[in-house]
Amino acid sequence: MQLGIIGLGRMGANIARRLMRDGHQAVVFDVNQEAVAALAADGATGAGDLPALVASLEKPRAIWVMLPAGPPTEDTINVLSGLLDADDVIIDGGNTFYKDDIRRAKTLTEQGLHYVDVGTSGGVWGLDRGYCMMIGGESHVVERLDPIFDCLAPGIGDIPRTRDRSPTADSRAERGYIHAGPAGSGHFVKMIHNGIEYGLMQAYAEGFDILKTKSSSELPQDQRFDLNMADIAEVWRRGSVVSSWLLDLTADALASDPQLANYSGAVSDSGEGRWTIDAAVEQAVPVPVLSSALFARFRSRQDSTYGDKMLSAMRFGFGGHIEVPK
Amino acid sequence: MQLGIIGLGRMGANIARRLMRDGHQAVVFDVNQEAVAALAADGATGAGDLPALVASLEKPRAIWVMLPAGPPTEDTINVLSGLLDADDVIIDGGNTFYKDDIRRAKTLTEQGLHYVDVGTSGGVWGLDRGYCMMIGGESHVVERLDPIFDCLAPGIGDIPRTRDRSPTADSRAERGYIHAGPAGSGHFVKMIHNGIEYGLMQAYAEGFDILKTKSSSELPQDQRFDLNMADIAEVWRRGSVVSSWLLDLTADALASDPQLANYSGAVSDSGEGRWTIDAAVEQAVPVPVLSSALFARFRSRQDSTYGDKMLSAMRFGFGGHIEVPK
Repeated sequence: MQLGIIGLGRMGANIARRLMRDGHQAVVFDVNQEAVAALAADGATGAGDLPALVASLEKPRAIWVMLPAGPPTEDTINVLSGLLDADDVIIDGGNTFYKDDIRRAKTLTEQGLHYVDVGTSGGVWGLDRGYCMMIGGESHVVERLDPIFDCLAPGIGDIPRTRDRSPTADSRAERGYIHAGPAGSGHFVKMIHNGIEYGLMQAYAEGFDILKTKSSSELPQDQRFDLNMADIAEVWRRGSVVSSWLLDLTADALASDPQLANYSGAVSDSGEGRWTIDAAVEQAVPVPVLSSALFARFRSRQDSTYGDKMLSAMRFGFGGHIEVPK
Repeated sequence: MQLGIIGLGRMGANIARRLMRDGHQAVVFDVNQEAVAALAADGATGAGDLPALVASLEKPRAIWVMLPAGPPTEDTINVLSGLLDADDVIIDGGNTFYKDDIRRAKTLTEQGLHYVDVGTSGGVWGLDRGYCMMIGGESHVVERLDPIFDCLAPGIGDIPRTRDRSPTADSRAERGYIHAGPAGSGHFVKMIHNGIEYGLMQAYAEGFDILKTKSSSELPQDQRFDLNMADIAEVWRRGSVVSSWLLDLTADALASDPQLANYSGAVSDSGEGRWTIDAAVEQAVPVPVLSSALFARFRSRQDSTYGDKMLSAMRFGFGGHIEVPK
C-alpha cells in the first residue's frame, strides 16, 4: 500500500526503504531536501513540502511521522491536521510521551482524523533485522495499516515459536508487532522497554567494571586476574544465561576496542528512561534497578558532584580528613 | 577421552550424557546409587564409592566434581586428594567461591595434583544447548582436558561469528569456553556472570511490574491500559533492543501462566550474587544496579521488614499517622 513518511533520518529513511523493497509505495518529505532526493533515487515519490506530500497521497491517507519527540513532532502534526481529510491517519513512530498521544488522539478524533502511536525498536539495524513495534490506536485503523506493520516487522524468522502460547495470544506478536491498546498504549509499552534497556545495560556495565578492575595492573600480582574482556563477552553469548542482543553488541565493541578508548563514558539519556521512573512513581511501583540505572547515567556526565564535595566537607568538619586527589 | 564424574544431579548427569553422546567414556559416582544405575543403563561405568571410581580410571586421571558448593564439594575433594596419584586432575564444575579455589589449588599442587575450576552456565538446558564454561587452572592441564570442554560447549552453532575479532582473541570463546587464567579465575568470571544475571532479571521484573500495575482493574478506566503481558514479552523477543535468552524464558512462562499464579514471589539467592557485591566492595567498584537486584531478593522473602515498621513508628511519632492496612 501507499504510505507518506515525514522525517528521513536513519529510522525514517530505512522504514521507507524496507517498505519499498516489499513493493509498497513511499511518498516522502524532509526539511533536508537532499535526504528526499536520495530516497527519490531509490524509488520513492519526493515532496517539496507538507501540502505537496498530502496532495500526492490517495485517500484515506496514512502518514508516518518519524521525527524527534517534542516540538518537531507536535508542530508537524498540527500543520498536517489542517491539511488532511476525514478518515486520514497520522502515525507517530517516534518516542512521544504517551500522555501527549492521548491528548492528540482526542483532538484529532474530534476533527474526524485518526491517530496511531507506534513505539519502534530496532535502531539502525531495522532495515535488515526488521522493527519491533508496539502500537496504540483504534482497532479498525490499526487493522487497515496491517500490511505496513507486517512488512516492517522482523517476521517469524529463525526465532523458535513459543511453546504453549496462551489461547488469547495475538499471533502478530510472533511476527514482531502488537496492538497494545488505545492511543498512547504503544508508546507506553515502548517507554517501559527503554526503561528496562537502561537496567540491562547498567547490569552488564557494572559486571564488566568488576572484571576490568580485577585485571588492573595497579593490583598486586597475587590479587589480580588478567582477564580478557572481549573473550568473556564472546563466551557469554554462547549457552549462558546472560546471552542477549545487547551482549552481542558489547562483544562486537570489545573485539575491536577492548579498552573502549573511543568512548568518553559520559552517557546521555533520552526522555523514556525518565518517564519510566515517573510512571513508577505515579503508580507506586518500586523500581530500584531501573532508577539506579538512570541515576548512574546522570552521575556519568559529571566529574565531581556538589554532593560529593559536601561529603568531603563533612568529613573534613568532623575528622579533619583531607581527600586524596583523584 | 575418559572422565570421572562425581555428583549426578541435573547438571552432572547431563554432562555425563553429553560426553557419552560424543563417544567419551564416563565413570560416575553419586551417593544416590539409583542415579548411578540410571547412568550405567545409558552406558556409563558406575562406581559404588570414591575408591572404586578412582580405581576405574586410567592415569593420569581427570575427575569432574559437580556438587553443591561448600562442604559437599570440599569434603569430596579432600577425600579424593588422598586417593589420587601425581598428575591427576580434579575439576570443580560447581559454584565454588573463587578464593576457595585459590586455596585448594595451592594445597593440591603441593601434593603433585592439578586443580581446575570451571564456572558452568546452562542449567537444565545444557544437555542440548551446551554449557558455557569459564575455566581457571594451569594452561597445560586445561589443554589436556580440551576434548572434554570442546564436547560440552555449545560450539559455533548458529550464532554469527563476531566481526573484527581482536588479534589476541581466543577462538575457544567462539565455541563456548574460555581459559580465563589461573585457578580461581574461572569461578570469578562465573560469579560476575551470575551477579549480572541478577541485575538483568530484576530490570525485566521491574518493567513488567509497571506494565502490570498500569493494567490493574483497580485503576479508573481512563488511566488504565489492558496490556497483555504474554504478547509484550513475545514481541520484545523480535527485533527489539531488550531481546535475550532470559526474555525467551519469560515469554514462555507468561504464555502458559500470564498471572504467574504458580509462583509465590519469594525469590532465593545463591552465593554468587552476594560474592559479586563482596568483590565490588573489595575492589571499590560502584554497583548500584547489581546490589539493588540482590537486595530486592532479600526484600521479596519478607512480609514487612523491621525497617518498614520503624518507618511507621516514626511517622506515628511525628505526625500521629496510622498506616492503612496492606
